[in-house]
Amino acid sequence: MAIRKYITKKKRVIDRALNMYLPSSKTRPQIIHKAMRYAVFPGGKRIRPVLSVAAFEACGGKGNSIIPVACAIELIHTYTLVHDDLPCMDNDDYRRGRLSCHKKFNEGLAVLAGDSLLTLAFQWLSETAGKDVINEVSKAIGSCGTVGGQVEDTLNQKRKRAAKKRELDYIATHKTGSLFEVAVKAAGIFKGVGKKKIKALANFGRYIGFTFQLVDDLVDGDGYVGIYDAGRVRKMAALLTERAKAHLDVFGKKGKRLADIADLILQRAR
Amino acid sequence: MAIRKYITKKKRVIDRALNMYLPSSKTRPQIIHKAMRYAVFPGGKRIRPVLSVAAFEACGGKGNSIIPVACAIELIHTYTLVHDDLPCMDNDDYRRGRLSCHKKFNEGLAVLAGDSLLTLAFQWLSETAGKDVINEVSKAIGSCGTVGGQVEDTLNQKRKRAAKKRELDYIATHKTGSLFEVAVKAAGIFKGVGKKKIKALANFGRYIGFTFQLVDDLVDGDGYVGIYDAGRVRKMAALLTERAKAHLDVFGKKGKRLADIADLILQRAR
Repeated sequence: MAIRKYITKKKRVIDRALNMYLPSSKTRPQIIHKAMRYAVFPGGKRIRPVLSVAAFEACGGKGNSIIPVACAIELIHTYTLVHDDLPCMDNDDYRRGRLSCHKKFNEGLAVLAGDSLLTLAFQWLSETAGKDVINEVSKAIGSCGTVGGQVEDTLNQKRKRAAKKRELDYIATHKTGSLFEVAVKAAGIFKGVGKKKIKALANFGRYIGFTFQLVDDLVDGDGYVGIYDAGRVRKMAALLTERAKAHLDVFGKKGKRLADIADLILQRAR
Repeated sequence: MAIRKYITKKKRVIDRALNMYLPSSKTRPQIIHKAMRYAVFPGGKRIRPVLSVAAFEACGGKGNSIIPVACAIELIHTYTLVHDDLPCMDNDDYRRGRLSCHKKFNEGLAVLAGDSLLTLAFQWLSETAGKDVINEVSKAIGSCGTVGGQVEDTLNQKRKRAAKKRELDYIATHKTGSLFEVAVKAAGIFKGVGKKKIKALANFGRYIGFTFQLVDDLVDGDGYVGIYDAGRVRKMAALLTERAKAHLDVFGKKGKRLADIADLILQRAR
């Protein structure tokens, strides 16, 4: 399938840029740069930065100028994983089949590596994108965005009853959805397209972020799968994917890659 | 002494702005906004943001346009305190005479409150200052700045020997110095003064940051006081203060407030 090749190709460009621009592990203090690189590489599918690139191209963008913005999004995603894995939060000893950052190094370094990745993301944005992009990203990932979702998620885990739908919705739209939304929206702002397309990207991003969370729950057998049967969650995910794709009309043929990525995210649910 | 009145006055403006622009503790998720506000208020002397204001005025700036930048600097300072106090780092149960954030709330929330404060600082900067300011701030506080200093400080505490001078110098210039330096430098960049004045502010900030650390060590009886006698450390601090003030010549009479603040920082050492 062409979209898989596209993703592989873009992932390679993103990985190369991350490797080139992250401080070397010989930079003082070496241990923090080792920890940062350990968290970033080899990494996962890089779906968020690939979405930034695809959104940029849907807006008519060409070339690699979007790459630093895409990489900043990936640094932010990585920082959330490092902090969320900490014993005082989700307490995960493993991440992508190997020791999580705080197990490989120690908790203090994991906190500081996360802090540094977040800070570096803003540094890269300030070197390559406009203030409007920085503003959108900061609003998406703060206490009323990504972090807010993580807060409600941890509160939820401490409750002795199953989460309610509205609680899960809040977590899905904030913890997962905010970063997906801004990954594509920031690309549109970066390209300088009009309000209509920005709005379309934001809606698309929000819906596929939500879908991503539903699919994650289906794979892990938790979250929404705790209150609905799997078939119903699968239907919700399919419906959201359709809604997401409907927002791409405004991009005409150029929206094809984004639509294909949306389909691919849904496919994992089968 | 006039400078104390000046600081009190500016502190009041800064506190009012922080209170106005921090999300209310009724904003969802309430608990994270309570934690953020708990960390920020009542706060300390607000010496870093006051320095931003004084540097802005030394550059000929008037009015309150610098206040959001100053407040962002204070948010960043607060985030470092919240994270540094964590059990996996300095493990301090108390801060300014009351429970530290992770003891009042819990560790997970303290990590997330710190993350949110850092993110909010960049949001405020993106709404009020230029990309050059954001870039300087991000470089100053990342893995080669403030966080780098904290990394070396924690490594140091784990060593079974006394720290060497060059290790303490690195920690002082990075953990403490970087934020002082950027607090005044960013104000100059924000005002749009020339390279000569920016350089002067950076040097001034670096020296008083170093002095601040020496004075802290004298008060706490650790750090440099572990390798030199107190009298020598006091002399080093006095020398650094003179060097700091020498860089203010370029501001003429307008540099008076900054010089007075430098003297006040040194006074604590007596």
